[in-house]
Amino acid sequence: MNDSPLMPQRPDDHAYMAAVDLGSNSFHMVIARVVDGDIQLLHREKQKVQLAEGLNEQLVLSEEAIERGLAVLAQFADTLKPFAPQSVRVIATYTLRRARNAATFLRRAKAVFPFPIEVISGQEEARFIYQGVAHFEHFAGRRLVMDIGGGSTEFAIGEGAQPLRLSSRNMGCVSYALQHFPQGRISEKRFNRAILQAEQELEPIVSSFKTAGWQQAVGTSGTVKTIRDIIVGMGLTSTALELSQLLALKAHLVAQENSFQLELPGLTDDRKLLICSGLAILIAAFNLLQIEQMIYIDAALREGVLYEMSDRLQHLDIREHSVASIQRRYDVDMPQADRVSHTALTLFSQVRNTWQLTDEDAMLLGWAATLFEVGLHINSSGVQKHSAYILQNANLPGFNQEQQQLIATLVRFHRRKIRADEIPAFSLYQIPQVICLLVLLRLAVLLNQKRRDDLLPELHASATNQQLQLLLPTDWLAQQSLLAADLLLEQKALKKIAFVLDCPGLTEVVPV
Amino acid sequence: MNDSPLMPQRPDDHAYMAAVDLGSNSFHMVIARVVDGDIQLLHREKQKVQLAEGLNEQLVLSEEAIERGLAVLAQFADTLKPFAPQSVRVIATYTLRRARNAATFLRRAKAVFPFPIEVISGQEEARFIYQGVAHFEHFAGRRLVMDIGGGSTEFAIGEGAQPLRLSSRNMGCVSYALQHFPQGRISEKRFNRAILQAEQELEPIVSSFKTAGWQQAVGTSGTVKTIRDIIVGMGLTSTALELSQLLALKAHLVAQENSFQLELPGLTDDRKLLICSGLAILIAAFNLLQIEQMIYIDAALREGVLYEMSDRLQHLDIREHSVASIQRRYDVDMPQADRVSHTALTLFSQVRNTWQLTDEDAMLLGWAATLFEVGLHINSSGVQKHSAYILQNANLPGFNQEQQQLIATLVRFHRRKIRADEIPAFSLYQIPQVICLLVLLRLAVLLNQKRRDDLLPELHASATNQQLQLLLPTDWLAQQSLLAADLLLEQKALKKIAFVLDCPGLTEVVPV
Repeated sequence: MNDSPLMPQRPDDHAYMAAVDLGSNSFHMVIARVVDGDIQLLHREKQKVQLAEGLNEQLVLSEEAIERGLAVLAQFADTLKPFAPQSVRVIATYTLRRARNAATFLRRAKAVFPFPIEVISGQEEARFIYQGVAHFEHFAGRRLVMDIGGGSTEFAIGEGAQPLRLSSRNMGCVSYALQHFPQGRISEKRFNRAILQAEQELEPIVSSFKTAGWQQAVGTSGTVKTIRDIIVGMGLTSTALELSQLLALKAHLVAQENSFQLELPGLTDDRKLLICSGLAILIAAFNLLQIEQMIYIDAALREGVLYEMSDRLQHLDIREHSVASIQRRYDVDMPQADRVSHTALTLFSQVRNTWQLTDEDAMLLGWAATLFEVGLHINSSGVQKHSAYILQNANLPGFNQEQQQLIATLVRFHRRKIRADEIPAFSLYQIPQVICLLVLLRLAVLLNQKRRDDLLPELHASATNQQLQLLLPTDWLAQQSLLAADLLLEQKALKKIAFVLDCPGLTEVVPV
Repeated sequence: MNDSPLMPQRPDDHAYMAAVDLGSNSFHMVIARVVDGDIQLLHREKQKVQLAEGLNEQLVLSEEAIERGLAVLAQFADTLKPFAPQSVRVIATYTLRRARNAATFLRRAKAVFPFPIEVISGQEEARFIYQGVAHFEHFAGRRLVMDIGGGSTEFAIGEGAQPLRLSSRNMGCVSYALQHFPQGRISEKRFNRAILQAEQELEPIVSSFKTAGWQQAVGTSGTVKTIRDIIVGMGLTSTALELSQLLALKAHLVAQENSFQLELPGLTDDRKLLICSGLAILIAAFNLLQIEQMIYIDAALREGVLYEMSDRLQHLDIREHSVASIQRRYDVDMPQADRVSHTALTLFSQVRNTWQLTDEDAMLLGWAATLFEVGLHINSSGVQKHSAYILQNANLPGFNQEQQQLIATLVRFHRRKIRADEIPAFSLYQIPQVICLLVLLRLAVLLNQKRRDDLLPELHASATNQQLQLLLPTDWLAQQSLLAADLLLEQKALKKIAFVLDCPGLTEVVPV
């Protein structure tokens, strides 16, 4: 599906951008430019990959599915060749979030596709979809958005640009087709089992979503579009979807016995095997959420990603809001957070060139330095573990899974022993880079242990590979035997991960 | 040390009670009775065990130390023979909290000592000590309490009966003696290293304790008592301890070179090897907290335990406050908490006799049923893990470690898969008992998924070993296909842990 043959004429212009969505059923790419603050879509491309079809019960992605995905990525890479890295965002959802061997896919993707692939949480997925719809078409009241994907179905409620409820459920048109309608088999019992299982999957969010309420229900994604097209084509409606029409379509499908034989207006071949499972999920949502009418809107995750990219171009980073929200929720001691992030970023600025660190690294370090004490809310004993647990598991809008995990990892080891074997393997970050950020955070925390503004002298740091020299004024250090003892301990802790902290004058201050 | 030869004349009287403290240096037992609401001490007994001396660097407790402990427990058991189980509380602290083989000690203790041994957290230890001091002697202002034990040192700040800061630091007179003054060796350098290490241990709490502030500093425990006696005996003071006196004593000790040769007023033989380490910890606290004067008060953990026992006799259970505080802090949906605990306790009352469950079991189940959703504060996705993490790690005054862990375990598996291998081995609870409570909690959560007050019919449950029959009215159940499907899933989940849930009529309601 190539909606437009237009290609960017000035790809070096920051106003051009592309969003790529590695979905469980299809990969999508949209290219757009910002004109007078609005987003103008220039090009859309869709490739059916059916990644979720290759995910087995042990959550291992098959070699065939990996190769299908990589082939499409290589095509996309060709189209995206003129683009600067910061003008492209690539988002991966359900299948790469769940697959145990996702790291293999991501590693092999690097060889054919030069842009970083960000795997996002289900809640982020729901948020992007909501943003896509909210920006696509204004609605004055509260809106429910439902997006049936290949492996998961996202639900959101919001007002204007503000999402209020976000949820991702483990049910999708590809996975349910494999499970409930294998080889295209259809029956009343199969349908009812699929609906009941979807209802069980929905049950935990029903109360919270109904309490929030909505005035308009919106469906997005190919499944809802296809069902809408069929129902309109059958003459059942010309406006919004209602439960009675869905049940009529279900009765019609049950009478067919096999999906391959289906001949329905608007039903393309590649949708035939997914129509029953998609309809079952839709009926379950109508049943449990008591949806009266649902309209279809032609917006999706990738449009939500584009709108967020345009926000970032204007230096509106939703991650700032997420961090501030967590600071409030966990009642962070902000003067201390400011001290630690100031020290961390001061040291960062002195070593960033040697260590080849980026602006994005500075932001992640700064956020970690303002969040490292959120765990005090659970217990001051073992705070590093509690902070990491919260940051690993909280919903942090705007962060992809690896960014969130990087911050959690920095915070996990902001003091005490560094367990190198517990530092996860990242796809977007290299281990030396993680270690550099960790060293800076640890030093910033250590130097501010007294929680005072008037204590620290000017700091001078210089770096070489796996080594940092910290220069403290000799006469000042002579008064700080406890700090000197802490720095000696820190030298030992870092030595265990093969990092050299050089801080002249310590041993003259500490009793040996 | 037998302060009093008095023994209870009417041990079956609930007003008689005993508290036993299995400390890292000594085991203590106090027997008391409640007279007109006041506690009257009848008998005190102390046995030097030096449990912490047997804890090696890998935190394994030696066979010799275990045997010394068990021998004293057998003596105590003899004294406590006339006591009913509910009139005795036995608290274990640092060494049994840290020892990797604590379970071995607890298992072998059961053979010689019939009362349950409760291992408590460091914060609970500090709280009991604070309560002991607060009830022993009234003070109108804010009070700092410091207790130097064999393996850990506890700090508390409070007003009246209300603690405001609680902390336990991993430094004690036995462990520091082994590390810094082996074979009784003394030197200026050894002293300074011990003081510096204690200061490093104290550093993380200094800011929070100094911010809280205090008008009176109190020392408890044998270490402070001995140092006070020596300093008074040397004519250095007759009132409160000051830093200058501690430094004078340090200078005197350094001049002696070896602890065995020490001859000081008030220093008993069994204290000779612990005086330098205890003094180093005390000096570190004076330095960092800037303590001007410290008085000694002859109260300790065991007295705090007695006061709490007398509260429970009057049906004042501090655990109720702890649970309510956590509910507030994590903004629990209280109507739902009430529904789930009501259902859980209704079922409990119908099966308690068959399953031989106790009032205490009912309380623990009820609390778990009001706390299972605290994890929503972190994320609704994976709530069972987040709730368990919080309840495992929060400071819950009044709960011993196993009670807290039991509640966390019930909550961890309140829905979804039960991982039997992740259910910890308890000393105070049997696995079948844990499973029974877990089944009741899961059913109560499942039956209240819709968060409505008007939904459930009267519930009838009956039990046999590893089996529960739940009877639901047939015509009501016929309307609840989703609930029936959930109960079928629950049957399967319980079957995996060899538990039979029998609920007639399910398969008639669910499409198969």
